[in-house]
Amino acid sequence: MTRAELQFLVNQVADQVLGPANPTLGAPSRAAKPLAARRSASELAATIDHTNLKPEATRQDIVQLCEEALALRCATVCVPSIWVSLAHSILRGSSVKVCTVAGFPSGAVPPTVKRMEAEIAMRNGAEEIDMVLPIGMLRSGELDMVRQDVATVAEATAERGALLKVILEAAALSEREIAVGCALSRLGGAQFVKTSTGLHPAGGARVEHVAWMRKAVGGDLGVKAAGGIRNAETAFAMLAAGANRIGTSATVSILNSLKSTTGG
Amino acid sequence: MTRAELQFLVNQVADQVLGPANPTLGAPSRAAKPLAARRSASELAATIDHTNLKPEATRQDIVQLCEEALALRCATVCVPSIWVSLAHSILRGSSVKVCTVAGFPSGAVPPTVKRMEAEIAMRNGAEEIDMVLPIGMLRSGELDMVRQDVATVAEATAERGALLKVILEAAALSEREIAVGCALSRLGGAQFVKTSTGLHPAGGARVEHVAWMRKAVGGDLGVKAAGGIRNAETAFAMLAAGANRIGTSATVSILNSLKSTTGG
Repeated sequence: MTRAELQFLVNQVADQVLGPANPTLGAPSRAAKPLAARRSASELAATIDHTNLKPEATRQDIVQLCEEALALRCATVCVPSIWVSLAHSILRGSSVKVCTVAGFPSGAVPPTVKRMEAEIAMRNGAEEIDMVLPIGMLRSGELDMVRQDVATVAEATAERGALLKVILEAAALSEREIAVGCALSRLGGAQFVKTSTGLHPAGGARVEHVAWMRKAVGGDLGVKAAGGIRNAETAFAMLAAGANRIGTSATVSILNSLKSTTGG
Repeated sequence: MTRAELQFLVNQVADQVLGPANPTLGAPSRAAKPLAARRSASELAATIDHTNLKPEATRQDIVQLCEEALALRCATVCVPSIWVSLAHSILRGSSVKVCTVAGFPSGAVPPTVKRMEAEIAMRNGAEEIDMVLPIGMLRSGELDMVRQDVATVAEATAERGALLKVILEAAALSEREIAVGCALSRLGGAQFVKTSTGLHPAGGARVEHVAWMRKAVGGDLGVKAAGGIRNAETAFAMLAAGANRIGTSATVSILNSLKSTTGG
Protein backbone atom coordinates (compact mmCIF):
# COMPACT_ATOMS: atom_id res chain seq x y z
CA MET A 1 0.00 0.00 0.00
CA THR A 2 1.41 3.40 -0.89
CA ARG A 3 1.35 6.31 1.51
CA ALA A 4 -1.28 8.05 -0.62
CA GLU A 5 -3.48 4.97 -0.72
CA LEU A 6 -3.19 4.61 3.03
CA GLN A 7 -4.10 8.26 3.58
CA PHE A 8 -7.10 7.92 1.25
CA LEU A 9 -8.31 4.81 3.04
CA VAL A 10 -7.91 6.37 6.46
CA ASN A 11 -9.71 9.53 5.38
CA GLN A 12 -12.56 7.42 4.08
CA VAL A 13 -12.83 5.58 7.36
CA ALA A 14 -12.66 8.77 9.40
CA ASP A 15 -15.25 10.49 7.20
CA GLN A 16 -17.57 7.53 7.41
CA VAL A 17 -17.30 7.42 11.18
CA LEU A 18 -17.44 11.15 11.82
CA GLY A 19 -19.56 12.39 8.95
CA PRO A 20 -23.24 13.19 9.45
CA ALA A 21 -24.12 11.62 6.10
CA ASN A 22 -25.04 8.19 7.44
CA PRO A 23 -27.70 8.42 10.13
CA THR A 24 -27.56 4.70 10.93
CA LEU A 25 -24.08 5.33 12.28
CA GLY A 26 -25.36 8.02 14.62
CA ALA A 27 -25.10 5.83 17.68
CA PRO A 28 -23.95 2.28 18.28
CA SER A 29 -26.93 -0.04 18.37
CA ARG A 30 -26.13 -1.32 21.85
CA ALA A 31 -26.29 2.16 23.29
CA ALA A 32 -30.06 2.17 22.73
CA LYS A 33 -30.67 -0.66 25.16
CA PRO A 34 -28.54 -0.18 28.26
CA LEU A 35 -30.69 -2.52 30.31
CA ALA A 36 -29.83 -5.42 28.05
CA ALA A 37 -26.19 -4.94 29.02
CA ARG A 38 -26.84 -5.41 32.71
CA ARG A 39 -25.32 -8.73 33.74
CA SER A 40 -24.90 -10.94 36.74
CA ALA A 41 -21.64 -10.83 38.69
CA SER A 42 -20.37 -13.98 36.98
CA GLU A 43 -21.31 -12.73 33.50
CA LEU A 44 -19.55 -9.44 34.20
CA ALA A 45 -16.48 -11.23 35.65
CA ALA A 46 -16.08 -13.11 32.37
CA THR A 47 -15.55 -9.78 30.57
CA ILE A 48 -12.95 -8.42 33.04
CA ASP A 49 -9.17 -8.17 32.71
CA HIS A 50 -8.34 -7.99 36.42
CA THR A 51 -5.52 -5.49 36.38
CA ASN A 52 -2.53 -4.33 38.39
CA LEU A 53 -0.07 -2.38 36.26
CA LYS A 54 1.39 -0.25 39.05
CA PRO A 55 5.17 0.05 38.75
CA GLU A 56 5.50 -0.48 42.50
CA ALA A 57 3.36 -3.67 42.57
CA THR A 58 5.20 -6.39 44.48
CA ARG A 59 5.37 -10.14 44.00
CA GLN A 60 2.74 -10.48 46.74
CA ASP A 61 0.44 -7.98 44.99
CA ILE A 62 0.62 -10.04 41.79
CA VAL A 63 -0.01 -13.31 43.65
CA GLN A 64 -3.09 -11.76 45.27
CA LEU A 65 -4.34 -10.46 41.91
CA CYS A 66 -4.08 -13.94 40.40
CA GLU A 67 -5.84 -15.57 43.33
CA GLU A 68 -8.68 -13.06 43.09
CA ALA A 69 -9.00 -13.61 39.34
CA LEU A 70 -9.17 -17.38 39.89
CA ALA A 71 -11.82 -17.08 42.58
CA LEU A 72 -13.90 -14.61 40.54
CA ARG A 73 -13.34 -16.34 37.15
CA CYS A 74 -12.16 -13.23 35.35
CA ALA A 75 -11.20 -13.35 31.68
CA THR A 76 -7.54 -12.56 32.42
CA VAL A 77 -5.15 -10.93 34.81
CA CYS A 78 -3.37 -7.95 33.28
CA VAL A 79 0.14 -7.51 34.73
CA PRO A 80 3.42 -5.81 33.75
CA SER A 81 5.60 -7.95 31.52
CA ILE A 82 8.17 -8.70 34.25
CA TRP A 83 5.44 -10.53 36.21
CA VAL A 84 4.11 -12.75 33.40
CA SER A 85 6.06 -15.84 34.49
CA LEU A 86 4.79 -15.54 38.04
CA ALA A 87 1.17 -15.05 36.92
CA HIS A 88 1.41 -17.97 34.49
CA SER A 89 2.79 -20.25 37.22
CA ILE A 90 -0.34 -19.54 39.30
CA LEU A 91 -2.97 -19.56 36.54
CA ARG A 92 -1.71 -22.45 34.41
CA GLY A 93 -4.47 -24.98 33.81
CA SER A 94 -7.27 -22.58 34.75
CA SER A 95 -9.63 -20.63 32.48
CA VAL A 96 -7.99 -17.33 33.50
CA LYS A 97 -5.45 -16.18 30.93
CA VAL A 98 -2.41 -13.97 31.38
CA CYS A 99 -2.60 -10.59 29.66
CA THR A 100 0.30 -8.15 29.64
CA VAL A 101 1.33 -4.87 28.07
CA ALA A 102 3.94 -3.72 25.55
CA GLY A 103 5.39 -0.21 25.35
CA PHE A 104 3.22 0.71 28.33
CA PRO A 105 2.10 3.33 29.01
CA SER A 106 3.98 5.71 26.70
CA GLY A 107 3.79 3.86 23.39
CA ALA A 108 6.67 6.08 22.24
CA VAL A 109 9.19 3.28 21.80
CA PRO A 110 10.33 1.64 18.55
CA PRO A 111 8.07 -1.17 17.25
CA THR A 112 10.83 -3.77 17.50
CA VAL A 113 11.13 -3.02 21.23
CA LYS A 114 7.38 -3.56 21.71
CA ARG A 115 7.63 -6.75 19.70
CA MET A 116 10.50 -8.07 21.79
CA GLU A 117 8.57 -7.32 24.97
CA ALA A 118 5.54 -9.17 23.55
CA GLU A 119 7.64 -12.14 22.40
CA ILE A 120 9.30 -12.60 25.80
CA ALA A 121 5.90 -12.32 27.48
CA MET A 122 4.33 -14.91 25.15
CA ARG A 123 7.22 -17.31 25.73
CA ASN A 124 6.54 -16.87 29.45
CA GLY A 125 2.84 -17.67 29.09
CA ALA A 126 1.00 -14.48 28.07
CA GLU A 127 -1.92 -15.07 25.69
CA GLU A 128 -3.07 -11.47 25.34
CA ILE A 129 -0.92 -8.42 24.61
CA ASP A 130 -2.14 -4.84 25.18
CA MET A 131 0.28 -2.67 23.21
CA VAL A 132 0.24 1.13 23.27
CA LEU A 133 -0.13 3.02 19.98
CA PRO A 134 2.51 5.73 19.36
CA ILE A 135 -0.06 8.53 19.58
CA GLY A 136 2.55 11.24 19.00
CA MET A 137 3.21 9.68 15.59
CA LEU A 138 -0.54 9.47 14.97
CA ARG A 139 -0.95 13.15 15.83
CA SER A 140 2.00 13.97 13.54
CA GLY A 141 0.24 12.31 10.60
CA GLU A 142 2.81 9.51 10.36
CA LEU A 143 0.07 7.06 9.50
CA ASP A 144 2.20 4.41 7.88
CA MET A 145 4.58 4.37 10.84
CA VAL A 146 1.60 3.85 13.14
CA ARG A 147 0.22 1.01 11.01
CA GLN A 148 3.68 -0.56 10.88
CA ASP A 149 4.00 -0.27 14.64
CA VAL A 150 0.85 -2.35 15.11
CA ALA A 151 1.77 -4.75 12.29
CA THR A 152 5.21 -5.44 13.78
CA VAL A 153 3.66 -6.66 17.04
CA ALA A 154 0.70 -8.32 15.27
CA GLU A 155 3.06 -10.56 13.29
CA ALA A 156 4.46 -11.91 16.55
CA THR A 157 1.08 -12.35 18.27
CA ALA A 158 -0.40 -14.06 15.19
CA GLU A 159 2.48 -16.54 15.13
CA ARG A 160 1.61 -17.54 18.70
CA GLY A 161 -2.17 -17.31 18.37
CA ALA A 162 -2.25 -14.57 20.99
CA LEU A 163 -4.79 -11.75 21.08
CA LEU A 164 -3.53 -8.23 20.31
CA LYS A 165 -5.23 -5.17 21.77
CA VAL A 166 -4.12 -1.67 20.82
CA ILE A 167 -4.38 1.09 23.44
CA LEU A 168 -5.22 4.49 21.93
CA GLU A 169 -5.14 6.81 25.01
CA ALA A 170 -8.45 8.25 23.89
CA ALA A 171 -8.57 11.14 26.39
CA ALA A 172 -5.47 12.63 24.75
CA LEU A 173 -6.91 12.38 21.23
CA SER A 174 -9.64 14.05 19.17
CA GLU A 175 -12.63 12.05 17.93
CA ARG A 176 -11.10 12.03 14.47
CA GLU A 177 -7.70 10.86 15.77
CA ILE A 178 -9.46 8.04 17.63
CA ALA A 179 -11.25 6.98 14.44
CA VAL A 180 -7.99 7.03 12.47
CA GLY A 181 -6.16 5.16 15.24
CA CYS A 182 -8.85 2.47 15.17
CA ALA A 183 -8.60 2.17 11.37
CA LEU A 184 -4.81 1.81 11.55
CA SER A 185 -5.07 -0.74 14.37
CA ARG A 186 -7.40 -2.83 12.23
CA LEU A 187 -5.17 -2.49 9.17
CA GLY A 188 -2.18 -3.44 11.32
CA GLY A 189 -3.81 -6.69 12.38
CA ALA A 190 -5.08 -6.09 15.93
CA GLN A 191 -8.07 -7.98 17.34
CA PHE A 192 -9.10 -5.29 19.83
CA VAL A 193 -8.84 -1.57 20.41
CA LYS A 194 -8.64 -0.30 23.98
CA THR A 195 -9.53 3.12 25.30
CA SER A 196 -6.82 4.10 27.79
CA THR A 197 -3.76 3.23 29.83
CA GLY A 198 -5.37 4.63 32.98
CA LEU A 199 -2.23 6.66 33.63
CA HIS A 200 -2.55 9.69 31.36
CA PRO A 201 -3.12 13.07 32.99
CA ALA A 202 -5.96 13.73 30.51
CA GLY A 203 -7.96 10.91 32.12
CA GLY A 204 -9.23 7.40 31.52
CA ALA A 205 -12.10 5.85 29.59
CA ARG A 206 -15.30 7.76 28.89
CA VAL A 207 -18.51 6.26 27.52
CA GLU A 208 -18.22 8.31 24.35
CA HIS A 209 -14.72 6.95 23.70
CA VAL A 210 -16.18 3.44 23.67
CA ALA A 211 -19.04 4.50 21.41
CA TRP A 212 -16.66 6.19 18.93
CA MET A 213 -14.35 3.20 18.91
CA ARG A 214 -17.20 0.72 18.42
CA LYS A 215 -18.44 2.87 15.55
CA ALA A 216 -14.95 2.92 14.04
CA VAL A 217 -14.29 -0.83 14.19
CA GLY A 218 -17.87 -2.02 13.58
CA GLY A 219 -18.36 -5.64 14.53
CA ASP A 220 -14.92 -6.75 13.32
CA LEU A 221 -12.84 -5.99 16.39
CA GLY A 222 -13.31 -6.05 20.13
CA VAL A 223 -13.40 -2.87 22.22
CA LYS A 224 -11.85 -2.86 25.69
CA ALA A 225 -12.79 -0.07 28.10
CA ALA A 226 -10.13 0.57 30.73
CA GLY A 227 -8.93 3.42 32.90
CA GLY A 228 -10.85 4.73 35.90
CA ILE A 229 -13.65 2.12 35.90
CA ARG A 230 -14.33 1.86 39.64
CA ASN A 231 -17.92 0.64 39.96
CA ALA A 232 -20.53 -1.61 38.34
CA GLU A 233 -22.60 1.23 36.89
CA THR A 234 -19.62 2.52 34.92
CA ALA A 235 -18.75 -0.99 33.76
CA PHE A 236 -22.33 -1.56 32.53
CA ALA A 237 -22.37 1.82 30.80
CA MET A 238 -19.19 0.86 28.93
CA LEU A 239 -20.69 -2.47 27.87
CA ALA A 240 -23.87 -0.71 26.78
CA ALA A 241 -21.83 1.69 24.66
CA GLY A 242 -20.20 -1.18 22.78
CA ALA A 243 -17.35 -2.52 24.92
CA ASN A 244 -16.95 -6.28 25.18
CA ARG A 245 -14.02 -6.28 27.59
CA ILE A 246 -13.42 -4.25 30.76
CA GLY A 247 -10.05 -3.53 32.33
CA THR A 248 -10.16 -2.59 35.99
CA SER A 249 -8.32 -2.99 39.28
CA ALA A 250 -11.58 -2.57 41.22
CA THR A 251 -12.88 -6.02 40.23
CA VAL A 252 -13.43 -7.30 43.75
CA SER A 253 -15.53 -4.35 44.91
CA ILE A 254 -17.42 -4.16 41.59
CA LEU A 255 -18.42 -7.82 41.72
CA ASN A 256 -19.14 -7.74 45.46
CA SER A 257 -21.52 -4.82 44.92
CA LEU A 258 -23.49 -6.91 42.42
CA LYS A 259 -23.60 -9.96 44.65
CA SER A 260 -24.89 -7.96 47.60
CA THR A 261 -27.64 -6.26 45.60
CA THR A 262 -28.75 -8.98 43.18
CA GLY A 263 -27.49 -12.22 44.62
CA GLY A 264 -25.92 -12.74 41.15
CA MET B 1 28.57 -12.08 44.39
CA THR B 2 26.17 -14.39 46.18
CA ARG B 3 22.67 -13.34 47.16
CA ALA B 4 23.71 -13.29 50.84
CA GLU B 5 26.75 -11.13 50.11
CA LEU B 6 24.62 -8.74 48.12
CA GLN B 7 22.04 -8.51 50.89
CA PHE B 8 24.81 -7.87 53.45
CA LEU B 9 26.35 -5.16 51.32
CA VAL B 10 23.03 -3.46 50.68
CA ASN B 11 22.12 -3.58 54.37
CA GLN B 12 25.43 -1.99 55.21
CA VAL B 13 24.83 0.80 52.73
CA ALA B 14 21.28 1.36 53.93
CA ASP B 15 22.36 1.38 57.58
CA GLN B 16 25.16 3.78 56.88
CA VAL B 17 22.85 6.13 55.04
CA LEU B 18 19.90 5.86 57.39
CA GLY B 19 21.57 5.22 60.74
CA PRO B 20 22.21 8.07 63.18
CA ALA B 21 25.67 6.68 64.04
CA ASN B 22 27.63 8.89 61.69
CA PRO B 23 26.91 12.57 62.26
CA THR B 24 28.99 13.69 59.29
CA LEU B 25 26.41 12.00 57.10
CA GLY B 26 23.60 13.95 58.72
CA ALA B 27 23.18 16.28 55.78
CA PRO B 28 24.84 16.57 52.41
CA SER B 29 27.56 19.21 52.53
CA ARG B 30 26.01 21.29 49.77
CA ALA B 31 22.79 21.63 51.69
CA ALA B 32 24.53 23.91 54.18
CA LYS B 33 25.19 26.62 51.62
CA PRO B 34 22.12 27.09 49.44
CA LEU B 35 23.26 30.53 48.30
CA ALA B 36 26.35 29.04 46.71
CA ALA B 37 24.05 27.00 44.48
CA ARG B 38 22.37 30.06 43.00
CA ARG B 39 23.53 30.39 39.43
CA SER B 40 23.10 32.57 36.41
CA ALA B 41 20.68 31.55 33.69
CA SER B 42 23.48 30.18 31.53
CA GLU B 43 25.03 28.23 34.41
CA LEU B 44 21.65 26.76 35.27
CA ALA B 45 20.95 25.95 31.59
CA ALA B 46 24.11 23.85 31.46
CA THR B 47 22.65 21.55 34.16
CA ILE B 48 19.25 21.09 32.45
CA ASP B 49 17.91 18.14 30.48
CA HIS B 50 15.24 20.00 28.51
CA THR B 51 12.46 17.44 28.52
CA ASN B 52 9.35 16.42 26.62
CA LEU B 53 8.38 12.83 27.35
CA LYS B 54 4.66 13.23 26.71
CA PRO B 55 3.25 10.28 24.74
CA GLU B 56 1.24 12.69 22.61
CA ALA B 57 4.23 14.92 21.72
CA THR B 58 4.31 15.49 17.96
CA ARG B 59 7.21 15.85 15.53
CA GLN B 60 6.74 19.61 15.74
CA ASP B 61 6.86 19.53 19.55
CA ILE B 62 10.19 17.70 19.43
CA VAL B 63 11.61 20.10 16.82
CA GLN B 64 10.64 23.03 19.04
CA LEU B 65 12.20 21.38 22.10
CA CYS B 66 15.50 20.93 20.24
CA GLU B 67 15.51 24.49 18.95
CA GLU B 68 14.90 25.81 22.47
CA ALA B 69 17.69 23.63 23.89
CA LEU B 70 20.09 24.93 21.22
CA ALA B 71 19.20 28.54 21.89
CA LEU B 72 19.44 28.13 25.66
CA ARG B 73 22.51 25.82 25.61
CA CYS B 74 20.99 23.12 27.75
CA ALA B 75 22.94 19.98 28.65
CA THR B 76 20.61 17.73 26.66
CA VAL B 77 17.14 17.29 25.29
CA CYS B 78 15.31 14.36 26.86
CA VAL B 79 12.85 12.76 24.42
CA PRO B 80 11.06 9.40 24.00
CA SER B 81 13.13 6.83 22.17
CA ILE B 82 11.08 6.99 18.96
CA TRP B 83 12.16 10.62 18.55
CA VAL B 84 15.93 10.17 19.05
CA SER B 85 16.75 10.17 15.32
CA LEU B 86 14.85 13.39 14.79
CA ALA B 87 16.50 15.11 17.78
CA HIS B 88 19.93 13.92 16.70
CA SER B 89 19.41 15.27 13.18
CA ILE B 90 18.76 18.73 14.65
CA LEU B 91 21.42 18.76 17.41
CA ARG B 92 24.30 17.03 15.60
CA GLY B 93 27.46 19.12 15.85
CA SER B 94 26.19 21.22 18.75
CA SER B 95 27.03 20.96 22.45
CA VAL B 96 23.49 19.78 23.24
CA LYS B 97 23.32 16.01 23.57
CA VAL B 98 20.38 13.69 23.03
CA CYS B 99 19.11 11.96 26.16
CA THR B 100 16.34 9.36 26.05
CA VAL B 101 14.59 6.89 28.32
CA ALA B 102 14.36 3.09 28.56
CA GLY B 103 11.47 1.19 30.14
CA PHE B 104 9.80 4.52 30.80
CA PRO B 105 7.92 5.22 32.97
CA SER B 106 6.97 1.82 34.40
CA GLY B 107 10.35 0.12 34.68
CA ALA B 108 8.43 -3.15 34.92
CA VAL B 109 9.77 -4.65 31.69
CA PRO B 110 12.49 -7.29 31.27
CA PRO B 111 16.08 -5.95 31.31
CA THR B 112 16.77 -7.20 27.79
CA VAL B 113 13.89 -5.06 26.53
CA LYS B 114 15.33 -1.97 28.23
CA ARG B 115 18.72 -2.82 26.79
CA MET B 116 17.35 -3.16 23.27
CA GLU B 117 15.60 0.19 23.59
CA ALA B 118 18.87 1.77 24.77
CA GLU B 119 20.89 0.13 22.00
CA ILE B 120 18.56 1.34 19.25
CA ALA B 121 18.57 4.82 20.77
CA MET B 122 22.39 4.92 20.97
CA ARG B 123 22.68 3.76 17.36
CA ASN B 124 20.37 6.66 16.48
CA GLY B 125 22.49 9.22 18.34
CA ALA B 126 21.52 9.16 22.03
CA GLU B 127 24.44 9.76 24.42
CA GLU B 128 22.52 9.57 27.68
CA ILE B 129 20.01 6.91 28.75
CA ASP B 130 17.58 7.39 31.65
CA MET B 131 16.35 3.87 32.50
CA VAL B 132 13.65 3.14 35.05
CA LEU B 133 14.43 0.79 37.93
CA PRO B 134 11.93 -2.08 38.44
CA ILE B 135 10.74 -0.71 41.77
CA GLY B 136 8.23 -3.52 42.27
CA MET B 137 11.16 -5.96 42.27
CA LEU B 138 13.04 -3.67 44.66
CA ARG B 139 10.05 -3.58 47.02
CA SER B 140 9.80 -7.39 46.76
CA GLY B 141 13.39 -7.76 47.97
CA GLU B 142 14.58 -9.15 44.62
CA LEU B 143 17.85 -7.25 44.99
CA ASP B 144 19.93 -9.29 42.61
CA MET B 145 17.30 -8.98 39.88
CA VAL B 146 17.35 -5.21 40.35
CA ARG B 147 21.15 -5.05 40.18
CA GLN B 148 21.10 -7.27 37.09
CA ASP B 149 18.50 -5.03 35.49
CA VAL B 150 20.83 -2.03 35.79
CA ALA B 151 23.91 -4.06 34.83
CA THR B 152 22.23 -5.35 31.66
CA VAL B 153 21.70 -1.81 30.38
CA ALA B 154 25.01 -0.55 31.81
CA GLU B 155 26.96 -3.08 29.70
CA ALA B 156 25.41 -1.58 26.58
CA THR B 157 25.91 2.05 27.58
CA ALA B 158 29.53 1.40 28.64
CA GLU B 159 30.27 -0.14 25.24
CA ARG B 160 29.14 3.08 23.59
CA GLY B 161 30.55 5.49 26.18
CA ALA B 162 27.04 6.73 26.96
CA LEU B 163 25.91 7.98 30.35
CA LEU B 164 23.43 5.82 32.29
CA LYS B 165 20.98 7.36 34.74
CA VAL B 166 18.68 5.18 36.84
CA ILE B 167 15.25 6.53 37.75
CA LEU B 168 14.05 5.39 41.18
CA GLU B 169 10.52 6.92 41.38
CA ALA B 170 11.37 8.20 44.84
CA ALA B 171 7.85 9.36 45.80
CA ALA B 172 6.65 5.74 45.62
CA LEU B 173 9.50 4.44 47.82
CA SER B 174 10.55 4.64 51.46
CA GLU B 175 13.80 6.35 52.47
CA ARG B 176 15.36 2.92 52.99
CA GLU B 177 14.15 1.65 49.59
CA ILE B 178 15.67 4.75 47.97
CA ALA B 179 19.02 4.09 49.71
CA VAL B 180 18.98 0.45 48.60
CA GLY B 181 17.96 1.42 45.06
CA CYS B 182 20.88 3.85 44.89
CA ALA B 183 23.31 1.18 46.15
CA LEU B 184 22.08 -1.30 43.53
CA SER B 185 22.28 1.32 40.78
CA ARG B 186 25.90 1.98 41.70
CA LEU B 187 26.71 -1.73 41.87
CA GLY B 188 25.00 -2.21 38.51
CA GLY B 189 27.24 0.36 36.87
CA ALA B 190 25.13 3.51 36.53
CA GLN B 191 26.69 6.98 36.46
CA PHE B 192 23.65 8.83 37.84
CA VAL B 193 20.57 8.24 39.93
CA LYS B 194 17.43 10.22 39.16
CA THR B 195 14.52 11.00 41.44
CA SER B 196 11.35 10.54 39.41
CA THR B 197 9.62 9.93 36.10
CA GLY B 198 7.31 12.90 36.66
CA LEU B 199 4.33 10.67 35.87
CA HIS B 200 3.69 8.72 39.06
CA PRO B 201 0.50 9.52 40.98
CA ALA B 202 2.57 9.72 44.19
CA GLY B 203 4.32 12.82 42.84
CA GLY B 204 7.62 14.06 41.49
CA ALA B 205 10.94 15.12 43.01
CA ARG B 206 11.14 16.53 46.52
CA VAL B 207 14.20 18.21 48.05
CA GLU B 208 14.58 15.43 50.61
CA HIS B 209 14.67 12.82 47.84
CA VAL B 210 17.68 14.55 46.38
CA ALA B 211 19.36 14.85 49.80
CA TRP B 212 18.79 11.14 50.53
CA MET B 213 20.08 10.11 47.13
CA ARG B 214 23.17 12.31 47.40
CA LYS B 215 23.85 10.81 50.81
CA ALA B 216 23.46 7.32 49.38
CA VAL B 217 25.77 7.76 46.40
CA GLY B 218 28.28 10.14 48.01
CA GLY B 219 30.46 11.88 45.48
CA ASP B 220 30.72 8.88 43.15
CA LEU B 221 27.58 9.31 41.11
CA GLY B 222 25.53 12.17 39.77
CA VAL B 223 22.05 12.96 41.06
CA LYS B 224 19.38 14.19 38.66
CA ALA B 225 16.29 15.88 40.08
CA ALA B 226 13.27 15.63 37.78
CA GLY B 227 9.50 15.64 38.04
CA GLY B 228 7.46 18.72 38.82
CA ILE B 229 10.31 21.25 38.74
CA ARG B 230 8.46 24.29 37.41
CA ASN B 231 10.43 27.33 38.62
CA ALA B 232 13.95 28.57 39.35
CA GLU B 233 13.56 28.46 43.15
CA THR B 234 12.77 24.75 43.06
CA ALA B 235 15.65 24.10 40.67
CA PHE B 236 18.09 25.93 42.96
CA ALA B 237 16.75 24.08 46.01
CA MET B 238 17.42 20.77 44.23
CA LEU B 239 20.97 21.84 43.35
CA ALA B 240 21.54 22.98 46.93
CA ALA B 241 20.38 19.59 48.21
CA GLY B 242 22.95 17.80 46.07
CA ALA B 243 21.59 17.50 42.54
CA ASN B 244 23.94 18.17 39.66
CA ARG B 245 21.42 17.72 36.86
CA ILE B 246 17.86 18.99 36.51
CA GLY B 247 15.17 17.51 34.29
CA THR B 248 12.33 19.85 33.43
CA SER B 249 9.97 20.83 30.66
CA ALA B 250 9.66 24.37 32.09
CA THR B 251 13.17 25.35 30.98
CA VAL B 252 12.13 28.38 28.96
CA SER B 253 10.11 30.03 31.71
CA ILE B 254 12.66 29.10 34.39
CA LEU B 255 15.54 30.68 32.47
CA ASN B 256 13.48 33.67 31.40
CA SER B 257 12.60 34.38 35.02
CA LEU B 258 16.31 34.54 35.85
CA LYS B 259 17.15 36.75 32.93
CA SER B 260 14.43 39.22 33.80
CA THR B 261 15.45 39.46 37.47
CA THR B 262 19.25 39.21 37.32
CA GLY B 263 20.23 39.99 33.78
CA GLY B 264 22.08 36.63 33.90
